[in-house]
Amino acid sequence: MEIIYGLNPIKEALNANSREFFDVIACKPRYRDIAGVARGIPVHEVTKKELDKITGTKGHQGVAARVSGYRYTTLEDVATLNVIVLLDSVEDPQNLGAIIRSAHALAGSGIIIPAKRAASVTPSVLKASAGATEYTKIARVPNLRMAAKVLKGQGFWLVGLEAEKGEQIGKIPTFERLGVVLGGEDAGIRSGMRSEIDVVAHIPMKTAFNSLNVASSAAIAMYELVTRRASNKA
Amino acid sequence: MEIIYGLNPIKEALNANSREFFDVIACKPRYRDIAGVARGIPVHEVTKKELDKITGTKGHQGVAARVSGYRYTTLEDVATLNVIVLLDSVEDPQNLGAIIRSAHALAGSGIIIPAKRAASVTPSVLKASAGATEYTKIARVPNLRMAAKVLKGQGFWLVGLEAEKGEQIGKIPTFERLGVVLGGEDAGIRSGMRSEIDVVAHIPMKTAFNSLNVASSAAIAMYELVTRRASNKA
Repeated sequence: MEIIYGLNPIKEALNANSREFFDVIACKPRYRDIAGVARGIPVHEVTKKELDKITGTKGHQGVAARVSGYRYTTLEDVATLNVIVLLDSVEDPQNLGAIIRSAHALAGSGIIIPAKRAASVTPSVLKASAGATEYTKIARVPNLRMAAKVLKGQGFWLVGLEAEKGEQIGKIPTFERLGVVLGGEDAGIRSGMRSEIDVVAHIPMKTAFNSLNVASSAAIAMYELVTRRASNKA
Repeated sequence: MEIIYGLNPIKEALNANSREFFDVIACKPRYRDIAGVARGIPVHEVTKKELDKITGTKGHQGVAARVSGYRYTTLEDVATLNVIVLLDSVEDPQNLGAIIRSAHALAGSGIIIPAKRAASVTPSVLKASAGATEYTKIARVPNLRMAAKVLKGQGFWLVGLEAEKGEQIGKIPTFERLGVVLGGEDAGIRSGMRSEIDVVAHIPMKTAFNSLNVASSAAIAMYELVTRRASNKA
């Protein structure tokens, strides 16, 4: 059981039918909005202060819900897609949420995250993803490098994004089965994982300030490697 | 006077010479690192707990500094650049910081923000920008629409990013003087501002989940309209 919050995240979870809903908790004036959407689910009215306490945040937008925990899928299921983002190892929930949102919206991509020393799909990640977690195939694996090996065995090409290294991202080939590897906020792609990478690419910069947020890098990679190329072909 | 925090933000502020430093406050083990960098500035050692209290956050990475407030520049000065991002109106400090970081690194862009109902350049924005605020020309204007009119009078073309509307961003012309207009997290581009826009563009999506974080949109816009086009010409 976990407590998710935010109007759109809860609407998306209802819409995606991704969770078992035990009840919805709302304060005025959100109570009416959500009661109309949460058909057949008990809705309780509480004060804003109570909701702050229940959710542990002030960012609940007046509504929360007690639901079943996030349902990860298997590596095998993610590998039914042709675009996958492998995260090694993103620690900030805001970044993880934004990456899932971009990867899903721009590329219909699946996500692979390591089980240890990385953010998992918590309610704050759901919120930062604007609900995209509920539509995205996300696998949480014990060993990211092993997962990379499995994907390569299934025809995926692994593109690793690193500052200044390798080819410009706009100039690498288009791969039918694509795994994009992104390093975490501090350590980047670790050496074990780096040895699995087929193509190293970088995002070109216009200034010497060679530094992007990992979620911004992810958005550019999804746009360049998937969305832009697909729309150029169309 | 304000209290900035984080190792890289403080290093960048020292490097950019963008602030007057009154003193540096650090706890172990960061004290030695920063004492070597902060030449001629008094460095005080405190406990982690004291630093939590002084900065009002646990995200200080062991170091803070009392410095002069952020030095905004004028609209006229921003207009000496050929790429400018106009934000109408971004409220989240994490988003504002990430946008400034991408706009500077990818495009050497200036930034215009409205003085009211929008995030300003606070210490948490400095931190989220990884220090990019200290190198970026940022103007805070009383009226964003008036600023847009001034820029248009100086040869800027204003491209407004909106979901699904207008041209695909990859297919609009390259402008010598470019202003990219981004709407805030909730309201998007407001109607007064929208009437100043020359070209409406959207980021193509692969799924029906048509939703990107504003900082992700900004990164893609800077990449597509500036960095990628410049590197294709080179």
